[in-house]
Amino acid sequence: MGFIGFGKVSKNLVEMIKSEEIMFVTSAENRSSETVENIRKSDVRILDTFKDVAIQSDILISANSPKNALNIAREYGKYAKGIYLDLNNISPDTAHEINEHADNLVDGAIIGKIDSPNPTLLISGENADDLLFLSDFIKTVKISDRIGDASILKMLRSTYTKTLSALLIESHEIAKIHNLEEEFFDVLSLTEGKDFREKSLSRINNTLKSSKRKSEELEEIISYFNENELIMVKAALKKLNQ
Amino acid sequence: MGFIGFGKVSKNLVEMIKSEEIMFVTSAENRSSETVENIRKSDVRILDTFKDVAIQSDILISANSPKNALNIAREYGKYAKGIYLDLNNISPDTAHEINEHADNLVDGAIIGKIDSPNPTLLISGENADDLLFLSDFIKTVKISDRIGDASILKMLRSTYTKTLSALLIESHEIAKIHNLEEEFFDVLSLTEGKDFREKSLSRINNTLKSSKRKSEELEEIISYFNENELIMVKAALKKLNQ
Repeated sequence: MGFIGFGKVSKNLVEMIKSEEIMFVTSAENRSSETVENIRKSDVRILDTFKDVAIQSDILISANSPKNALNIAREYGKYAKGIYLDLNNISPDTAHEINEHADNLVDGAIIGKIDSPNPTLLISGENADDLLFLSDFIKTVKISDRIGDASILKMLRSTYTKTLSALLIESHEIAKIHNLEEEFFDVLSLTEGKDFREKSLSRINNTLKSSKRKSEELEEIISYFNENELIMVKAALKKLNQ
Repeated sequence: MGFIGFGKVSKNLVEMIKSEEIMFVTSAENRSSETVENIRKSDVRILDTFKDVAIQSDILISANSPKNALNIAREYGKYAKGIYLDLNNISPDTAHEINEHADNLVDGAIIGKIDSPNPTLLISGENADDLLFLSDFIKTVKISDRIGDASILKMLRSTYTKTLSALLIESHEIAKIHNLEEEFFDVLSLTEGKDFREKSLSRINNTLKSSKRKSEELEEIISYFNENELIMVKAALKKLNQ
């Protein structure tokens, strides 16, 4: 199993996938000193070049950044003879472009933070079945045979969760104005579950803390799902930019 | 305990509050034949007039309709020597007007349907403590000493739940377009709870079935909480009117 890119996702995957039968490889080629340090601390063999990594891996994992995903596929996809798993949080359109450069592409999306207690790996594509063995290490769900579906589903999930956060921010503001903040959480806990308060405050705070990034993600969602009018999502974007 | 109005709320309260020590009274004065039938089937003493009901009750419950709430208080509030509990789903402003006509007003709001498994009675006002004994029969929560707070909290709850329904409708539409309806529910169940699918479909269907009434409620919310811009709630109204 080879990694192009060795940030948080790759590092955590190596830690989670503990198996005598799986050897991990990557390269330090042109990497930052921070990344090289990450690699050194992990149980990973270091090859000279990423071309070597691509050639030698049964499963090649591209885990870099959405921006670099396509370039990596262009450069190394042709050397990958096994599965090419993209974990770059790419758009469905980018997944289709990458598919032109990598023969056995599996479109992957991680739900939840990779270092949270229970991340889930969504995979789609005709070769996704070959990766279901990963369930032994990380919850892995095949969505469909269609490249792009894992990415679409991740966007759909974001559509809901990010718009919900905007709604929570707005409701919470009104509750505070009326001095009914605690009561607001209490009364909704009756139907929304006991953890409503804690979960909602965490969503509100996370969203306000990174509202610029969340806004950008909402903009991507609006531009991708452009066949719908997306009244609620557009309002969420407006709310976050307020 | 006296009732002015004997619809679903009053009928269910009489069934829930089973106590040797509490006698129920109401009147058939100018009531519809359907209401008179309801009264006959319940364990309630029938007095000649609502004036008699008001005079003889330690706790007078006004459970009629939001539209009639103020008129009932104007007509019978002056005869009520005990607690005057308004359960008419009124706005906070109406609660304050009613307070001018009833000496010991308690502002009440029922969360959940009265005939659902676990309705909750929210109460506010200086005399609300005197009604906490109702907890033996129905979950009763005092919100504050301020008249109007129970009504505000009910509106706050609606702000959240009705806007959430609009968001669910929109997300569900996109999921269906992309043939990922089941997967959408599955992936959100991971973080939103196992009952996410069932609860969401029930919210979507209930909202679409009574979208006109829900729209009117959203309009009331927007007009009451007018100190805020209410971006999300206004979008929900637009979505329901789509």
